[in-house]
Amino acid sequence: MIELGENRYGKSAIRLVRVVRGAGGQRVRDLTVAVSLEGAFETAHTEGDNSGVIATDTMKNTTYAFAKDHLEGSIENFGRRLAEHFREQPQVARATVTVREHAWRPIPTRGGVAVSPDAFIRDASSTRLAIVTAGDGGTRFTSGIEELAMMKTAKSAFVGFPRDRFTTLREATDRLMATQVSARWQYGRSSDESDFDRCFEAVTETLLEAFAEHSSPSVQASIWIIGRAILEAHAEVTEVSLSMPNLHHWLVDLEPFGLANEGEIFMPTREPHGLIEATIRRRG
Amino acid sequence: MIELGENRYGKSAIRLVRVVRGAGGQRVRDLTVAVSLEGAFETAHTEGDNSGVIATDTMKNTTYAFAKDHLEGSIENFGRRLAEHFREQPQVARATVTVREHAWRPIPTRGGVAVSPDAFIRDASSTRLAIVTAGDGGTRFTSGIEELAMMKTAKSAFVGFPRDRFTTLREATDRLMATQVSARWQYGRSSDESDFDRCFEAVTETLLEAFAEHSSPSVQASIWIIGRAILEAHAEVTEVSLSMPNLHHWLVDLEPFGLANEGEIFMPTREPHGLIEATIRRRG
Amino acid sequence: MIELGENRYGKSAIRLVRVVRGAGGQRVRDLTVAVSLEGAFETAHTEGDNSGVIATDTMKNTTYAFAKDHLEGSIENFGRRLAEHFREQPQVARATVTVREHAWRPIPTRGGVAVSPDAFIRDASSTRLAIVTAGDGGTRFTSGIEELAMMKTAKSAFVGFPRDRFTTLREATDRLMATQVSARWQYGRSSDESDFDRCFEAVTETLLEAFAEHSSPSVQASIWIIGRAILEAHAEVTEVSLSMPNLHHWLVDLEPFGLANEGEIFMPTREPHGLIEATIRRRG
Amino acid sequence: MIELGENRYGKSAIRLVRVVRGAGGQRVRDLTVAVSLEGAFETAHTEGDNSGVIATDTMKNTTYAFAKDHLEGSIENFGRRLAEHFREQPQVARATVTVREHAWRPIPTRGGVAVSPDAFIRDASSTRLAIVTAGDGGTRFTSGIEELAMMKTAKSAFVGFPRDRFTTLREATDRLMATQVSARWQYGRSSDESDFDRCFEAVTETLLEAFAEHSSPSVQASIWIIGRAILEAHAEVTEVSLSMPNLHHWLVDLEPFGLANEGEIFMPTREPHGLIEATIRRRG
Repeated sequence: MIELGENRYGKSAIRLVRVVRGAGGQRVRDLTVAVSLEGAFETAHTEGDNSGVIATDTMKNTTYAFAKDHLEGSIENFGRRLAEHFREQPQVARATVTVREHAWRPIPTRGGVAVSPDAFIRDASSTRLAIVTAGDGGTRFTSGIEELAMMKTAKSAFVGFPRDRFTTLREATDRLMATQVSARWQYGRSSDESDFDRCFEAVTETLLEAFAEHSSPSVQASIWIIGRAILEAHAEVTEVSLSMPNLHHWLVDLEPFGLANEGEIFMPTREPHGLIEATIRRRG
Repeated sequence: MIELGENRYGKSAIRLVRVVRGAGGQRVRDLTVAVSLEGAFETAHTEGDNSGVIATDTMKNTTYAFAKDHLEGSIENFGRRLAEHFREQPQVARATVTVREHAWRPIPTRGGVAVSPDAFIRDASSTRLAIVTAGDGGTRFTSGIEELAMMKTAKSAFVGFPRDRFTTLREATDRLMATQVSARWQYGRSSDESDFDRCFEAVTETLLEAFAEHSSPSVQASIWIIGRAILEAHAEVTEVSLSMPNLHHWLVDLEPFGLANEGEIFMPTREPHGLIEATIRRRG
Repeated sequence: MIELGENRYGKSAIRLVRVVRGAGGQRVRDLTVAVSLEGAFETAHTEGDNSGVIATDTMKNTTYAFAKDHLEGSIENFGRRLAEHFREQPQVARATVTVREHAWRPIPTRGGVAVSPDAFIRDASSTRLAIVTAGDGGTRFTSGIEELAMMKTAKSAFVGFPRDRFTTLREATDRLMATQVSARWQYGRSSDESDFDRCFEAVTETLLEAFAEHSSPSVQASIWIIGRAILEAHAEVTEVSLSMPNLHHWLVDLEPFGLANEGEIFMPTREPHGLIEATIRRRG
Repeated sequence: MIELGENRYGKSAIRLVRVVRGAGGQRVRDLTVAVSLEGAFETAHTEGDNSGVIATDTMKNTTYAFAKDHLEGSIENFGRRLAEHFREQPQVARATVTVREHAWRPIPTRGGVAVSPDAFIRDASSTRLAIVTAGDGGTRFTSGIEELAMMKTAKSAFVGFPRDRFTTLREATDRLMATQVSARWQYGRSSDESDFDRCFEAVTETLLEAFAEHSSPSVQASIWIIGRAILEAHAEVTEVSLSMPNLHHWLVDLEPFGLANEGEIFMPTREPHGLIEATIRRRG
């Protein structure tokens, strides 16, 4: 006997730009949206019955239409509108909407002052993320930041690790730490009224500060320190997950050329890289 | 009170080529390996205690050393050796080794016959995958194939789906279906003695055949039909998961140019795309 | 005084699939096309005069329309039709059409025999290229192949190079050579009647054979040997340009682990890589 | 008779990070360097004579060694040191060094003030470029900027273009213009003493200002206006080349959903895209 297990379907990579044209200047919203549904779709698989299969093309259309009326505020609230709309269909048990926002800022010229209300430059330094799930338990929000490349040129070490036949790594009391952080955090139940934009800015600032200020005995410890700092400073956050690749920067051996290299010249690498992931949360 | 939740760490993107130099000709093995550990690493996070933290650099070294002695056969068996090696450490509760193999074949020349035993060309059409997990429940194997781009130019339809205010998609009784399949399947407990190479070839052949031969009322139904065919033909497989993006190819409107377009000229797109995922398994 | 120098414009990344539905089975043509024009476009720049500016959207439409009527044969002949069409406009001095073809082949099943006339799998091992230029001197053709990853596990050396203060590389009498070749070749004037498909197959076969069979004292010498072989075997080719990155595969030091490594275990790298480029041509 | 034509070789993708540790705080320099040589390398190709072939590995080593002593200032001056070093070899007729700098800035926290002298965040909004060529005619400098994504949400039109059988594009008096600019400019002979850092900042500011302020009748005209503005404002620049893809943002048709769309909701696309390139220079 063969049966259908977990299944989901939807539309990914819906690209969308909204130009907000207000009296006080313009704003560009640049989003990539994904919609994914779970529910009573068994006969769609096993019998080719499409009577409940909302076309993914319809999901795309709905996203564009909702962008017209429901994208004044945060991507969390936009995602909520979309997720709850799809959840209203009887065959849908859970709707997940993932929104990534790509930042644009006014072109800063003439001593830092924008000279034009309608010209923008992309800030590619990181991507803001929101995942909204509407299901039986209500609507839940995860916010996050991705592709945030950071580096510590001091206060990073790695010593005291076990050595076996295959260990050649030297202990390092002062190494360079480079990473590209992805962070996701969840809000508690009362988050419906949250000011998600303010929360995002505040959590991100804590993340940057904690990364900058702490002394790191390992990437594992860095994750704990950063995650704990976020939970301590932001009561609305119940849990934070961090993924931190360790993008090794090897000190170049300049001795053959008669030169010293006291933590100055590094060779950055991407393959292989360490990958450290953990979730930090409030107990109970 | 703040606590550590799920956590794992390891080394990703370990690149490795082994040249197997035998009497009957050479063979190139080109692998990308990732190692990931879970276990008693709490104090590494919370106290900066590295006494149990196997360095990810040591994981890399171990992978290269094991490639010398344990890579004669399948990537599943290579992954098993690595996973069970790390699992032996007392602080490790579960070791997961992911191996991707990139295919190389002898350069075929002079009427299809290889003219040189030591020259190879990369076959980039797909990637073979093995995930081996060694933990309390023993060692488990998942095999798979990734990046397999396929297309059906007939026998694909999508009709009978619900229509609402946001639906503009026309029903299609004869559309082009293009996808890039990722498939993963699991073997039962007795898989330790499996001939994983033969299984991989056989499952892949079934996948290709089922894709080619079936008539598709939807991508959802295609996944079911392909997954069921794999389970029916391969008793050693207990479960298969398929991820099939729907890479839309839109029929180009040539009417403005006075030309007919009867399923001939298409515009392939990547953004947005449908994404359909499901697991098919044996009941009980 | 400020003036306009070299300029060109056009449409890039026009994606196009044609399904050829014949009595003897189907065929999938998957192309990426770029059109670029040069000519009397000075006032378009300096005065915003668009009266001669063929819209790039029109270039796209023309490409799709021509795919309906002029894509029976080679991409060279398809490119020629497009290039000569745009060259007919009085303001156009030179039209360049670049066509890349991505290979699809019938899904081979049941002992190598296709079970379905309408199911295909992508062969991502390389991309075929054609560049056609229509201008004052007539129409000229460049053909090529891109992204062709090849490896020699023997018959490659690099010795006798100069040593200075900054040289640490050891001489290698037996190294692994890995590359990803791009080759482009030009046909003489009588090429209008060429069977470009047959030529492409034949030149590619020579390239593969020469790569496989020769002994390489350096990548520079390999390029010469391959280029010369192509010119010697194919009278219709007047010139060939080869770009061969040297994708270093470093022998892993297994001595610390008590293991020998006689040309067996390598670490493939991409950053940095050597890059060797040369043109080989008939004299006079 | 077969002969060697144009040829060059070198090392690409040399990745390099220098941490400048000064009394007044730290600075991170993150570079990707390429070295390419032309000269008397004919016998290297035709006879396998490596006696003049500076190993590309030596180029890499030299780049790291020079980073220690010669990377205090601009990437142009660093590139010059490297290029002139290789040009000194008798077999080298021309040495080209290409340097890309990836920006890092101190992590800004606590009201915009850096809290740590040794923590940095990557600014991925654009890449700075320098190409230095040392040859018979002395040393020449090209500077540039790449991957600079910009958008105009007003003051962009495209009307008055010719219409033929294949033209369906509507005239647009108010469209969205999105692009990802690459710009390269050359300095005159007296540039040896240039303050390249100051020049780069100034030219980039002019580019941003001109893009923001002008009204565009076409991308062709935008290139002219921006290029001319740079030449008019910067006497040391003799020539500027701009490459501006036209990354179409299509107005989404919301009418089927009973909604108006007055330049608000767009679908950004990448395939296909327009590509407009031109050089603007001083006459004579």
